[in-house]
Amino acid sequence: MNIDQNTLSAFLTELMGESGVISETADTSRYTTDWSGERLGEPLLVARPRSTQEVAAIVGFCHRHQVPMVAQGGHTGLVGGALPDAERPELVISLERLNRIRDIDPLNFTLSVDSGCVLQTIKDAAAESDCDFPLSLGAQGSCQIGGNIATNAGGLNVLRFGMMRQLVLGLEVVLPDGRIWNGMHALHKDNRGYDLKQLFIGAEGTLGIVTGAMLKLFPKPETSRTALVAVPDVSAALALYAQARRSCCDLLCAFELIPRACLELALEAAPSLSDPLESAYPVYVLFEVAASGPVDLDAMIEHLFEKGMEDGHVLDGVLAANDTQANRLWQIREYMVEGQQHRGEHLRTDISLPISSLSEFYDEASRAMIARSPDTEIIAYGHIGDGNLHFNLLPPPDLDLAAKQALLHELEGELFAIVERYQGSISAEHGIGRVKQAPFLDGLSDLERELITGLKTLFDPDDLMAAGRILPRRA
Amino acid sequence: MNIDQNTLSAFLTELMGESGVISETADTSRYTTDWSGERLGEPLLVARPRSTQEVAAIVGFCHRHQVPMVAQGGHTGLVGGALPDAERPELVISLERLNRIRDIDPLNFTLSVDSGCVLQTIKDAAAESDCDFPLSLGAQGSCQIGGNIATNAGGLNVLRFGMMRQLVLGLEVVLPDGRIWNGMHALHKDNRGYDLKQLFIGAEGTLGIVTGAMLKLFPKPETSRTALVAVPDVSAALALYAQARRSCCDLLCAFELIPRACLELALEAAPSLSDPLESAYPVYVLFEVAASGPVDLDAMIEHLFEKGMEDGHVLDGVLAANDTQANRLWQIREYMVEGQQHRGEHLRTDISLPISSLSEFYDEASRAMIARSPDTEIIAYGHIGDGNLHFNLLPPPDLDLAAKQALLHELEGELFAIVERYQGSISAEHGIGRVKQAPFLDGLSDLERELITGLKTLFDPDDLMAAGRILPRRA
Repeated sequence: MNIDQNTLSAFLTELMGESGVISETADTSRYTTDWSGERLGEPLLVARPRSTQEVAAIVGFCHRHQVPMVAQGGHTGLVGGALPDAERPELVISLERLNRIRDIDPLNFTLSVDSGCVLQTIKDAAAESDCDFPLSLGAQGSCQIGGNIATNAGGLNVLRFGMMRQLVLGLEVVLPDGRIWNGMHALHKDNRGYDLKQLFIGAEGTLGIVTGAMLKLFPKPETSRTALVAVPDVSAALALYAQARRSCCDLLCAFELIPRACLELALEAAPSLSDPLESAYPVYVLFEVAASGPVDLDAMIEHLFEKGMEDGHVLDGVLAANDTQANRLWQIREYMVEGQQHRGEHLRTDISLPISSLSEFYDEASRAMIARSPDTEIIAYGHIGDGNLHFNLLPPPDLDLAAKQALLHELEGELFAIVERYQGSISAEHGIGRVKQAPFLDGLSDLERELITGLKTLFDPDDLMAAGRILPRRA
Repeated sequence: MNIDQNTLSAFLTELMGESGVISETADTSRYTTDWSGERLGEPLLVARPRSTQEVAAIVGFCHRHQVPMVAQGGHTGLVGGALPDAERPELVISLERLNRIRDIDPLNFTLSVDSGCVLQTIKDAAAESDCDFPLSLGAQGSCQIGGNIATNAGGLNVLRFGMMRQLVLGLEVVLPDGRIWNGMHALHKDNRGYDLKQLFIGAEGTLGIVTGAMLKLFPKPETSRTALVAVPDVSAALALYAQARRSCCDLLCAFELIPRACLELALEAAPSLSDPLESAYPVYVLFEVAASGPVDLDAMIEHLFEKGMEDGHVLDGVLAANDTQANRLWQIREYMVEGQQHRGEHLRTDISLPISSLSEFYDEASRAMIARSPDTEIIAYGHIGDGNLHFNLLPPPDLDLAAKQALLHELEGELFAIVERYQGSISAEHGIGRVKQAPFLDGLSDLERELITGLKTLFDPDDLMAAGRILPRRA
């Protein structure tokens, strides 16, 4: 950094006016935390551009004056990727004011948008045009689409619609030197040379700042059905999944595993919820099918139930009769996460495995955790239709904080070693950021490290943009 | 190249035996042509490795000795990308013997395969396990999956299942220096840092040679229905498309536009085919819906027909009563391409546009072509559900070859200028290779050229691998 903070502040104020810059410590607290629970450093300043041109001007200035910078969206990240560095102060570039829906084209099934637009706003705009933007996350009321793109967000409907990557047709990106790359194409097929936008999706802001996106829409579902099914074990849940993919003609949007311990956490967090079935069962599956046209979803699900009962995969189940009942079933899924939060210190993971290994992995990992710490509670739920498990751990409540943390760290290492043996991933959807960096680097081959370092250096030779995320900061 | 051809030949023979090397000119003809109809140069030699390790050994040797090389699949490319260079002889590395199905995992919905495996073989293997690999192309009986990946192949079912890119979960690639990158993950979600495989998909072999792939499968369809519908014009075809996406619940696999002139070409090429409807209509749509479970597809299509009749989008139509009838409808689509071939010299394009602009573009482009050359026949069909048109031109038959070529070249330029005004793409699915390079470079911004050159240089600093494809060869 070859200027002082006052010069930077003066430049930003000149560019965007007083409201475009935040420098008081009191005002920056919202920019120093996210859902990861981490808290790293204070920002140099917070810039709040309202246009792509302003972002480009800020980044260009930072590039000329070697000012480290990091882009921020809705602060719902889970790996601390957007938090300001603790050791080398960074300019936070918040996209919160770059938040317009630019255009919607229902016949082309596309919607173009500024990157600071909140996901829910996009979903609502699509719905108003009889379309659907299918990305669905717990954070959708506050996360921004730019962050969803930077982290290649996943969520509940990946099974049918893919990750964020599959929902992006075009991007507009400010590169680390301040130049704007305009790749805002609204084309469903385009094979003109290298597909540059793929580089920025999932790069966690390290190769450029996404300022605009052309999103892919789908027909709005007219009907949907939600069901909760009790099964004897994870293996039966997977057999049901294989059958459901077929019986439901890939109209299956979500397929969630909820072991009994998770259901009980939800009941604990929300006393208004009641046990959804008359008896308690070891494992549940919560799933949803949706259709935009005339299809008999009830018949489809009944056929699946009957087949599952016959094959012994299904013990009991309930099909929501209306939206209110469906919402109550989905509340189990939401309150389960809240219940886990209430228990305090815990290990949250985000792993994925080949679906065919999930059951074996689940059993082996559970045994290994309990062998090491019999009083640790396993809270392992997730999007098993995508092979994605949140295999979380609640440490024994009687330990003090330091002991809990030490235990969880050790268990995490053991769990990740098992994940590696099963050729799984330690980050299915949350990304790497800072929180997952150490195990990520451990699993990286020399060749891979060389390639990703090469890409980073090609786009950001001075290591100024989101440095230290994914890869360690240079020098 | 710092060795002579004999040394190269000796190395290859030592590595793979006599059958692994082809050097006689008579034997190489199959390696010097493809479906583009271009014929460029003769190969230095043809190497036929049987394993990833052999590919790596060959590429490593070429890298050390600065031997230019190009990988070849099934010779069905349409842009001359895999043909040997005419000016700088290249070692052709044919993947035809690297053609095993490695593994199939129906519960994970994945299949891993060597890159030289023929697409149809993969589709058959998937079907045997009650699964579907949905990539569908005219060339599927001879194209290889490695070529499909290198060109990000499209085809008939992109509408529902996406391009090749969306069907790849993992890759194994030999880099231009001979090192093997093992990214053969079988994970449906994996956000560990940059997604390196995206770089190689659609890069036309310029960044590495794909040797293996982990493919994504779907449930095998149990039932499907094909229908041919007559509509008044392209605009009505698009209105029907919007309705079909909704009514058919995204079970729509294909949605093809066939103007009357194209239908007539098919009837000309295959006298056994008959006009599918009693009267002649200006424009037809051929579409297919498929489902893996119990869904009343007939009711779905009847509902769509009725709605279309009511709205005036549908004039007449036929729903195939069985597979034989469905095949006959699809033969129109296939013979149309053959009929065009029979007419001799013609312009073949592969453009895409926002779907909402297709009708206006179609009219404007048609007017412009006819204004310039009233006797040129427009054969514009395509995957309009993806915005992809093959807007082809048959020149007046009385012109001599040189005059035809000159006219078509001029018309192509005019057509591409209109495509650009409509923010379309000059290559929706065929890629760039050599044939599309000039208009591709014309449409490229300086920034984009810098970025793709940077990527090429990062992976292949000596410009040895598929040099001259996409970007011009350096020096």
